[in-house]
Order: sequence, then C-alpha cells, then structure tokens
Amino acid sequence: MRVTVQDVIDRLTVFGQGMEDGVDGLLFGEPDAPVQGVVTAFSATHRVLRRAIDLHADLVISHEGIFYSHRYVQAGKEADSVRREKERLIEEAGLAVYRCHDVVHRRPDLITRGLIRALEWETYLEKELPEAGILSLPGMTLKHLAEHVKERLNLPCLRVAGDLSAECRRVGILVGYRGGGRTAIPLFEEEGVDVVIAGEGPEWETPQYVKDAVFQGKGRAYVALGHAESEEPGMKYLAEILERAFPGLPVHFVPETPVFRVV
Amino acid sequence: MRVTVQDVIDRLTVFGQGMEDGVDGLLFGEPDAPVQGVVTAFSATHRVLRRAIDLHADLVISHEGIFYSHRYVQAGKEADSVRREKERLIEEAGLAVYRCHDVVHRRPDLITRGLIRALEWETYLEKELPEAGILSLPGMTLKHLAEHVKERLNLPCLRVAGDLSAECRRVGILVGYRGGGRTAIPLFEEEGVDVVIAGEGPEWETPQYVKDAVFQGKGRAYVALGHAESEEPGMKYLAEILERAFPGLPVHFVPETPVFRVV
Repeated sequence: MRVTVQDVIDRLTVFGQGMEDGVDGLLFGEPDAPVQGVVTAFSATHRVLRRAIDLHADLVISHEGIFYSHRYVQAGKEADSVRREKERLIEEAGLAVYRCHDVVHRRPDLITRGLIRALEWETYLEKELPEAGILSLPGMTLKHLAEHVKERLNLPCLRVAGDLSAECRRVGILVGYRGGGRTAIPLFEEEGVDVVIAGEGPEWETPQYVKDAVFQGKGRAYVALGHAESEEPGMKYLAEILERAFPGLPVHFVPETPVFRVV
Repeated sequence: MRVTVQDVIDRLTVFGQGMEDGVDGLLFGEPDAPVQGVVTAFSATHRVLRRAIDLHADLVISHEGIFYSHRYVQAGKEADSVRREKERLIEEAGLAVYRCHDVVHRRPDLITRGLIRALEWETYLEKELPEAGILSLPGMTLKHLAEHVKERLNLPCLRVAGDLSAECRRVGILVGYRGGGRTAIPLFEEEGVDVVIAGEGPEWETPQYVKDAVFQGKGRAYVALGHAESEEPGMKYLAEILERAFPGLPVHFVPETPVFRVV
C-alpha cells in the first residue's frame, strides 16, 4: 500500500482538528510525497533527524517545536547557526517534518494517557479532566512513589517538593508545561490530590505553593519529571497507533537522552 | 531616627521608577507605619514571614510574588487555602509586605550583580547588557565551573546541559526566568559565550538548542541554577544596601531552603 505524507496527517487529525491559532502542521516536505518510514519523537533534535535517516524514515513527527520555540517562525537571515545547520540536514535528506502537538492534547489526551500507561497506572485512572488525569493509587509514601516513577520511566533522578514520608494516594498528572499554578493548584484545592506529577512549570508557582502548604502542615507534594520525560511516553504510544493504522509501514519511536544531567 | 515604610520604599525606588504595568508595590500595610526591622527574601514564603515575626521585623521585602503567581490578584472567595492561611498570618501580625521586583532589575541590575558577587566573579565582568552579565573567566571545564558554582552558592546539586569536559571561558549570566531562548540564544550567537548560567526557562528552548549545538560539535553549555538560587544573592545584596541607608535599623536577609530536592 502506497502511503503519502497526507495519509499520515489525515490519520493524526482524526484525533480532532488542530485548534485555531494552533501549532500543528507540515514544517518541511510535500503532502503528496510517498512515505517509506515514520519516526515519532518528543522533539526532532539533530540526533533524532540523523537517526531517522539511518532508519530510512522520511517523515518525522515531532511533538514540540524543532527550533527552540513553541511557535514556528520562518527562518530569516537572523536564524541562529544551530538552526541553519539543522535545516540544511532536513533539506539535503529530503525529510518531511510534521509538528503534532495540539491534536494529541485534545480529549482524550493521548500524551497524558501515554504517561499513565508507561507508569502502569491505567487501572487507577479515576477521571480525565481536559488538562489532567486524576488517579487513586494504593497508598504509598512520596519516596516510594518517586522510586516507582524513576524505575518505570528509566530516569537517573527526579526533582521533588514535599515531605518524602508523606502518604500519596490521590495523584494528579499534568504533562508538558502544565505544571504552573493555574492548572496544578486547583487539583490540590478542588480535586483533593496529595501529589501532582508534572512535566515542568514556573518554579515560583506550584513548588512555592507546596512549600507553604507543607510548612502549614497540609502535607502536599510535587514531582517535576521534566518536559520531555513527561511527554516521550505519549509519542511512543502514538507510534504504536500509527503502526496499527498503516500495516507494513515501519514506524519508530526515537527517544532522546535527558536535556539535563545532575552534577 | 524614626523610619516609615514609605522611607524604605523611597530608598528602593531610587533604583528607578517601577515599570508601567509593573508588579512592584505595597501588598500589605500602610506607608506611614513606623518600621522596627526589615527582612528581604527571594519570596515571602510562610516560613520567611514567621522568621520575620521572630526577628521583630515588621516590613518584609519580597522579590517574587507571594501567592504563587507573578501578578498580584486581590484575594476573592476562590483564593486557595494556603494563601488564606498565609494572609491570616500577615494580617494578625500586622506585617507590611512590599514587592520589589522591577526596580532591582533596572540597569544596573542589582540581582545580576548580587549573583556575580556571590560567585566571586566581579573582576571578570566584561559588560552588563540590559538582561545579562557577560564575563571572561580564566578557562575551566564545565565540570570545574559547575563545582565552583555549587560551592559558592552552597547548592547540593546542579542541572547542566553540555559536555562536562568542554572549555568554558566566556560566560553569560541570566538570573530569574531569563533562561529562555529569546534571551539566552543571542548570548551564544552574538556574544560568543561558551556557557549560559541561568535561573530557569522552558526546557524545550535553550536546553534543546544546546543539545543540538553539542551534537553539531559546537560545544555549548547551559547551567540551570534554579530561579530562587539565582536571585537570592541579589536580595542579600539589597539587604546590605538598606542596612547602609538606614543606620541603626535592623535589616536581615532570610534565605529559604531549595524548593526541590533531587532523589
């Protein structure tokens, strides 16, 4: 079966049309080009693009922006040197690059589901809010919960706020940049969660709220996974969905190493 | 000498008037109230407020917002439970709380200067851009630089992106939330820095740029100090300035523990 870039895009947009003023779209390549292989990734880094070429994949689906900004801006003369070298690789290899962000965050949020699946907590999912998953876990300490998350996501370490001996039962999951106060604080206040596990968010918002809550004896906690760490499982999940949708077409999820190391 | 809240505010606004649509201002207390003692802090957390009461200080100067948001919003019925308890403490103790953010980030940026001073790198300061300090250090590896930063700022650990053996000579310093691509990438591209040391910023911007740059053999690096970690030295510096301005008035800088621990 001949598959084109547009066929894959059509399958992705089944999840919902992109939001108005959204960021999804074909950044490089032509819709009617045939596809030999697909790579999905949290972000199409230079290394991911190289790996796609090695895998003979000609369509790369990137969740986040590929030039260090949420919004795609047409390259001008002022484009930075790293971007220029990356664009040269894409053009020379004739890769198609599709940004797939907004549709996979529609309800149901496939990125949130992918993370919950990677944590092996599907059976504990109690409800799916537009931006969060709410889970009811068997009680465990924050230390135990952090160990589970590290092991399941294969992370060398994790940043946590709160008392490591605090009991965690009700959990809110916020992928990506949803860790800010506007999204996280209502989970504590209205949903009664003990801990929020988030990708990233401003440090003076939720972590400071948790610091004050702990000082007041309210015993709340926050786990900062990292943005990529929270969304890679969802892009792996998307690869599996595309694999089933296009039998015979090789689809690979390509993971990256963490952006930070802790020294 | 009788000092009022307004006298202290007048001394702070010498650094420049607050920006239009800025966030500086008296959040609690009256301008004509007498001041017995002053506390400065990165953020007036619940613990910092308690410590101010113990120190008989009645004016708390907070760099960041005290209710988990950059902008101050009048409390309504919907205010979260942590904020309500904190407001009760402020009102019962009769504390004055002044937000001092914008003026200390005017040129010269006292927060940036405070950090450079804490790092004992004043002699290496080459120029002060509106949002960044540019330093020319004696060459050292990224690993060595990270060790120096940890030791001087008394940090248990540090998040770094880049090759630990890379040579770092030219350094860009970006305090607070200035670690994003818009501010950090031009330091690499136009100022030729080897490493940016920043408070915080979105993980998909500068850290991804550094990841690609390293893959391309360009050898750049990024050190994420943490927001509070990057700005506390500046608020300590401000306490010293106020101490000299009001002889006889006790002025204390109150540090906080890190919002995150790494497990």
